Amino acid sequence: MSALKVGIAGLGTVAQGVVQTLQRNANLITGRAAGDIRVTAVASRSAKPDVDLHGARFSTDIMSLVGAADVDVVVELLGGEQPALDLCRAALAAGQHVVTANKALIAHHGVELHELATQNKVSIAYEAAVAGAIPVLGAIGRGLAGNQIEWLAGIINGTSNFILSAMAGEPSGSAKQKNSLSFAEALDQAQELGYAEADPTFDVEGIDAAHKLAILTSLAFGAALNFPAVFTEGISEVTVEDIEYAAQLGYVIKHLGIARQTANGIEARVHPALVPAKNLLAQVDGVMNAVMVGADGAGPTLYYGAGAGMQPTASAVVADLVDIALQQVRQPVAAAPMAYLGIEDIVTSYYLRVPVHDRSGVFARLTTALSELGISIEAAVQREHTRSAAKTPAGEAETVPIVLLTQDVTERTMQAALTQLQALPEVAGRIRCIRVEALEA
Amino acid sequence: MSALKVGIAGLGTVAQGVVQTLQRNANLITGRAAGDIRVTAVASRSAKPDVDLHGARFSTDIMSLVGAADVDVVVELLGGEQPALDLCRAALAAGQHVVTANKALIAHHGVELHELATQNKVSIAYEAAVAGAIPVLGAIGRGLAGNQIEWLAGIINGTSNFILSAMAGEPSGSAKQKNSLSFAEALDQAQELGYAEADPTFDVEGIDAAHKLAILTSLAFGAALNFPAVFTEGISEVTVEDIEYAAQLGYVIKHLGIARQTANGIEARVHPALVPAKNLLAQVDGVMNAVMVGADGAGPTLYYGAGAGMQPTASAVVADLVDIALQQVRQPVAAAPMAYLGIEDIVTSYYLRVPVHDRSGVFARLTTALSELGISIEAAVQREHTRSAAKTPAGEAETVPIVLLTQDVTERTMQAALTQLQALPEVAGRIRCIRVEALEA
Repeated sequence: MSALKVGIAGLGTVAQGVVQTLQRNANLITGRAAGDIRVTAVASRSAKPDVDLHGARFSTDIMSLVGAADVDVVVELLGGEQPALDLCRAALAAGQHVVTANKALIAHHGVELHELATQNKVSIAYEAAVAGAIPVLGAIGRGLAGNQIEWLAGIINGTSNFILSAMAGEPSGSAKQKNSLSFAEALDQAQELGYAEADPTFDVEGIDAAHKLAILTSLAFGAALNFPAVFTEGISEVTVEDIEYAAQLGYVIKHLGIARQTANGIEARVHPALVPAKNLLAQVDGVMNAVMVGADGAGPTLYYGAGAGMQPTASAVVADLVDIALQQVRQPVAAAPMAYLGIEDIVTSYYLRVPVHDRSGVFARLTTALSELGISIEAAVQREHTRSAAKTPAGEAETVPIVLLTQDVTERTMQAALTQLQALPEVAGRIRCIRVEALEA
Repeated sequence: MSALKVGIAGLGTVAQGVVQTLQRNANLITGRAAGDIRVTAVASRSAKPDVDLHGARFSTDIMSLVGAADVDVVVELLGGEQPALDLCRAALAAGQHVVTANKALIAHHGVELHELATQNKVSIAYEAAVAGAIPVLGAIGRGLAGNQIEWLAGIINGTSNFILSAMAGEPSGSAKQKNSLSFAEALDQAQELGYAEADPTFDVEGIDAAHKLAILTSLAFGAALNFPAVFTEGISEVTVEDIEYAAQLGYVIKHLGIARQTANGIEARVHPALVPAKNLLAQVDGVMNAVMVGADGAGPTLYYGAGAGMQPTASAVVADLVDIALQQVRQPVAAAPMAYLGIEDIVTSYYLRVPVHDRSGVFARLTTALSELGISIEAAVQREHTRSAAKTPAGEAETVPIVLLTQDVTERTMQAALTQLQALPEVAGRIRCIRVEALEA
């Protein structure tokens, strides 16, 4: 067999990981790919750093990879939109395969890039773009190929999961005592450890997770990639108080990407959610990722591992290269035009934390108001004084929270109810509302 | 594309599940496989049951599938050794692909069957043979193709996991109170629910898990299939008392299949093991399966789902059929001859429960004896009176258990130590010894 010649665009940590992996495991990979996979060229806009390229040529001209006789596959590890998009377009048009870890690129331009690949009879693969080392695209696309996928729910942003784990007081290392951090403290710690960027918006506000969910949704349901249809809400308003109330109700708060095929259309949404504490997803702590997939035959399956990092991401890139070497890239089925539900049309249950003036009968008045709005209560946490509760100077009643879990209701109904509840004289502050994900098929 | 014509041998629940799946998801599967996958023939030794075969011809002559013009792939779902082995041999020799869910067949005869497939330029695939619906062979063979696999540990027998979960008092359903069953009670319950056979030996004594571990070990390390090299110990001697002591030490007892590549050879062993309670494997309850894989680049990844059942197993069979339709079966790399370690050469830590006469100084004498034998203590559970403790008629000291976790030591050293400890005058009964699996790379 002839060797597969690889040109890498970018020379950050993941690119270095790919070079190292192909070198370190060369014999194993040659056996599995039925031929050598060799990095022949590396291109990076910055000058060549002090990295051993094991004989590959180096260029600061990224586009020099396009159409080069010594490059069968372009591995795009630049990140961002441009010049990554132009590079991938040109490589595919020149009849080169493309492997990328760029979730934003695929979420925004995947439809065009897949069409280009098909036209030019080459492959585009991006296992590394979703959940790092976890071969979850392969699991859905190949392992569950006999199934209709019904839903999926995943922890697909390690930064957010690290922060929520730290806020829940998950012990890092072997220390056993719980020590909950505030959101700001947890974010600081994530930044110190290199798990969060200086500007953490992309991770913390759910945009990164939404890119990945758009890709998962498209693959799972055979729907066209549709990033704008993904509802996105971050974790910056989750408080330790909510995490503690959720625990009392038997739940853990996780930042999930959720996709579901319903009779009325596809749900695709990223937001904090209460997850049953006994569910495996609730046990996924720190920067780890996991995706649970509900399928009509297989039932629920879960895929867990490192969602980012030099070596884990390189692992997924190399898996794609082996697929290309064996001509075994699984092309997604021509994407059908499918309707996506707006967030107002989803049906779920909700966690509500309602700050109220502590007068007698307030609990009954609140649940009566909810009932009149068509919302039933599933569970409530016994009221207790908040830590910050205090008599007002005028001697008015203290403020205490009422915490409720509702039964299933549409988001539209819930949002209308929140507006009305917020205006009640008993309500003393902003109502906090978090969706619940039961994780049942 | 022409259709892939499937002949199924056997018409039990899994076979019926395959027929149903290919019918139910026909449109999806045709799209994914780039052509129809059609059951054209079914053969079963018993008379045709009242099952809708959707037009497939039926025969009671299993060997009639071999070489038939309307059968491209033989799906062997007979179970057992014969006639399954003869059928698979003949089909491969006749140039037909083979898909099987038969773990015993592959564990014992996989080397021969793979050679036959290679000689005849056809494929043999058996995703359904290991961990049911979970696409774990695909994850290792494809998703982790860039990695050196270092170890794996899995809950790969649902019956044993159901029994251990019930003994640990894991609530079935939503009931929250713990209600631990004895081994015998849990086995009864498993049999009532159809999770255990009338003769449960294969599941409970670990033989089924050992078949699966032999397959996983071979794939993960590229080693020749070697079922006799798998050390096998079942769960019939695990007690609720041990489960409770393990919990006090921060562990859960699971029945694991463990494989590890060491400098001295391959470890492959099936036995009860103490697993850290925070590890995801410890959270896998009931009949569910999960396999954790430690790889040099990806790090630890975990694959979880239903390990058995009509639809889950059919899901894996159909995934193999789609691979065959697309000519994308990943053939394992020619298996290298590798040394397997005997159980006496493994290195691990141990849980010991030593029944002793409750005299002063007995704890010190025991740890001193262990120390002289080269075994250090990592942790101990405070002694307490056993429920069954009682003064002997002669008024001798009561019997109490001393529970210890050791540091790492070879099995040879531990077995020699157990022989010596057992003979100490302070030791009042049989010492119970269970291996600990730290689940770290």
